[in-house]
Amino acid sequence: MALIVHKYGGTSMGSTDRIRNVAKRVAKWARAGHQVVVVPSAMSGETNRLLGLARELSPEKSTKEVLRELDMIASTGEQVSVGLLSLALQSEGQPAISFTGWQVPVKTNDSYTKARIDSIDDQRVKAELNAGKVVIITGFQGIDEHNNVTTLGRGGSDTSAVAVAAALGADECLIFTDVDGVYTTDPRIVPEARRLGSVSFEEMLEMASLGSKVLQIRSVEFAGKYKVPMRVLSSFTPWDIDINVEAKSGTLITFEEDKNMEKAIVSGIAFNRDEAKISVLGVPDKPGIAYSILGAVAEANIEVDVIIQNISKDGKTDFSFTVNHGDFERALELLRTKVQPEVGAAEVVGDPRIAKVSIVGIGMRSHVGVASKMFKALADEGINIQMISTSEIKTSVVIDEKYMELAVRTLHRAFELDQAPQA
Amino acid sequence: MALIVHKYGGTSMGSTDRIRNVAKRVAKWARAGHQVVVVPSAMSGETNRLLGLARELSPEKSTKEVLRELDMIASTGEQVSVGLLSLALQSEGQPAISFTGWQVPVKTNDSYTKARIDSIDDQRVKAELNAGKVVIITGFQGIDEHNNVTTLGRGGSDTSAVAVAAALGADECLIFTDVDGVYTTDPRIVPEARRLGSVSFEEMLEMASLGSKVLQIRSVEFAGKYKVPMRVLSSFTPWDIDINVEAKSGTLITFEEDKNMEKAIVSGIAFNRDEAKISVLGVPDKPGIAYSILGAVAEANIEVDVIIQNISKDGKTDFSFTVNHGDFERALELLRTKVQPEVGAAEVVGDPRIAKVSIVGIGMRSHVGVASKMFKALADEGINIQMISTSEIKTSVVIDEKYMELAVRTLHRAFELDQAPQA
Repeated sequence: MALIVHKYGGTSMGSTDRIRNVAKRVAKWARAGHQVVVVPSAMSGETNRLLGLARELSPEKSTKEVLRELDMIASTGEQVSVGLLSLALQSEGQPAISFTGWQVPVKTNDSYTKARIDSIDDQRVKAELNAGKVVIITGFQGIDEHNNVTTLGRGGSDTSAVAVAAALGADECLIFTDVDGVYTTDPRIVPEARRLGSVSFEEMLEMASLGSKVLQIRSVEFAGKYKVPMRVLSSFTPWDIDINVEAKSGTLITFEEDKNMEKAIVSGIAFNRDEAKISVLGVPDKPGIAYSILGAVAEANIEVDVIIQNISKDGKTDFSFTVNHGDFERALELLRTKVQPEVGAAEVVGDPRIAKVSIVGIGMRSHVGVASKMFKALADEGINIQMISTSEIKTSVVIDEKYMELAVRTLHRAFELDQAPQA
Repeated sequence: MALIVHKYGGTSMGSTDRIRNVAKRVAKWARAGHQVVVVPSAMSGETNRLLGLARELSPEKSTKEVLRELDMIASTGEQVSVGLLSLALQSEGQPAISFTGWQVPVKTNDSYTKARIDSIDDQRVKAELNAGKVVIITGFQGIDEHNNVTTLGRGGSDTSAVAVAAALGADECLIFTDVDGVYTTDPRIVPEARRLGSVSFEEMLEMASLGSKVLQIRSVEFAGKYKVPMRVLSSFTPWDIDINVEAKSGTLITFEEDKNMEKAIVSGIAFNRDEAKISVLGVPDKPGIAYSILGAVAEANIEVDVIIQNISKDGKTDFSFTVNHGDFERALELLRTKVQPEVGAAEVVGDPRIAKVSIVGIGMRSHVGVASKMFKALADEGINIQMISTSEIKTSVVIDEKYMELAVRTLHRAFELDQAPQA
């Protein structure tokens, strides 16, 4: 008997028929002798509907008082889901009980609309599990220390599920979703993309942060921190698929580096076209110059990703970095009006038409020459590299946006990701 | 400065435009220097939508576990309302904060879907009022001693509002609704029906229990018990109506019997066609016979209203009572199969086509001949009275359903209810 957490996304919960299917699948796991905790999202479209109503009535300024009400409103979508799923399970003859975030309780900080989980009480949940019930807990939400409702932000139900799994010491956290696992890259760009049987949480973290949309990045961080084995699998298989087949399907995100994984030097190709590049040119090269530029950007709450500084020439240097598209205009304005005169830069230029393409793999730790193989493959296709950024298990390049698909396909082929690694 | 509770029904909260109107009205009261607590219902149609989803997934048997989930689901409608209204108030520049039942907390027993309020904590609400905020509290819901969500049943927001007013020691509880007050009878039947400026809570209690749908009966009981002055008034007047006019509009339900009220012997005519009559004929007349018949009915959880027992003749008596239409067939079956053989009754007959018409007025306490005036008025119109039931402040008659409208009009005229009582 194992303790398993199931998470179902909004699409899987999208109608009463689909909820009935989720209930049948969950009941199958319970009948097989497992203790099951389910964390469902709101029915698809519901959170948008609620926030749409809220938007019509909200004041212009999003004060803390306003954000608190948004969480009050948005959190109801998940509350409806857990009640409906509990009813559906009871209809299947499976005893079940639903809990909201405050009933567990799931304690968070008070950053409304993007709160972080501090702690989860396991007492009431364990008591109900031991009484033979499936326990259904609202995803996406919690309460702060003053009993105000908080939400974790978009995709927060993944994080809730992993956090619940960690708090309960669950054996595995199954993320049922509308894709059947994590792929070497997006199959819409590379049809030969292959589903990974397993991937380390560090790789998954890089893939998630680099734009792979399968999992919310915070849920992966959580899984890594608390060593919760997580599995991404499809909720669109027939509910009565053999449980032993289902238990091994999808992609396992593991904190144990298994033998098999070592063989694959690169596990996947991630990409992201949500960033824009900004260059501060002709900056007098003296100590503290990076801080003078990036400190001001950070103070304006603008997140910076890839950063490069060119080699100095005639006492001047060029400084480039990427920001999210959403922050591009604001960053450019800030740099031109404030930073440029301060640091005495010659010019500030921006380019929103860039893409970041990355190879990710824990095998890169122990293998040399991976990056140069990447650069050569891109050069062979005539793709110019504008920026390079490396970490222990990934290498990212910034290129012209129009070459993104070509670069992804080229790298996928170069690292033979269409073929399963040999054991 | 007064502490005022406002309650708005689902129609008043039916769209973002209407919520904006409610906010403007509430803000007007706050600007006038009052402390205001608002108890809004769910947006109209929302509770039905939620329970519709729940019905599709519910097991056949409504166990306590099932009812608990229904409350979990249904209570979200009010949670959305309070959040939206708080946003709308903040948009008006009026500081506001919303609370759910569990946040206050509103403690109830654990009778899911029809819970009763045990206590309401005033600490957090008073602190926010004193901080200059309008406090918005979900109607219709609370929590039991194990932190399970409960709801008070249909119309429960009225009760919540009065209970909140009682707990806070509010000066008045304003029930904003889609009618502009309490009438001497239903204006759809008697066009001359007159709005009452005030009515005692005892009269209101009788009117509510006798079928007047303006207020939920439990809210009136609550108001009487805790001596909360309650006012029923229209939410469809322009929001910027002069506050001094608005404060005196509608109908005041008061626990103080004012001079003016004494003058009106009868305040209103109530009616009800939701009941059916059952007669147990030719019952041997011996002690305990009423219990033999009604005890069995009560055990089957069937509520009995009017009861009469005829004078004995030849050692036999007839026994009649009314039950709700919904219980009629079940009661008939029970009496025929179980009670009739036991008590040795000759026959059990039923008649679902009856109506109950009542005159209500605290003036009846000190005036004689009111009932006989009623009987004479009905006799003059040839309406046969089948049953009579009296209490201190009301007299009810059961008549053939087809004479109901005629009886109501006749009595309205006989007691001159179209004319304001003279002071």
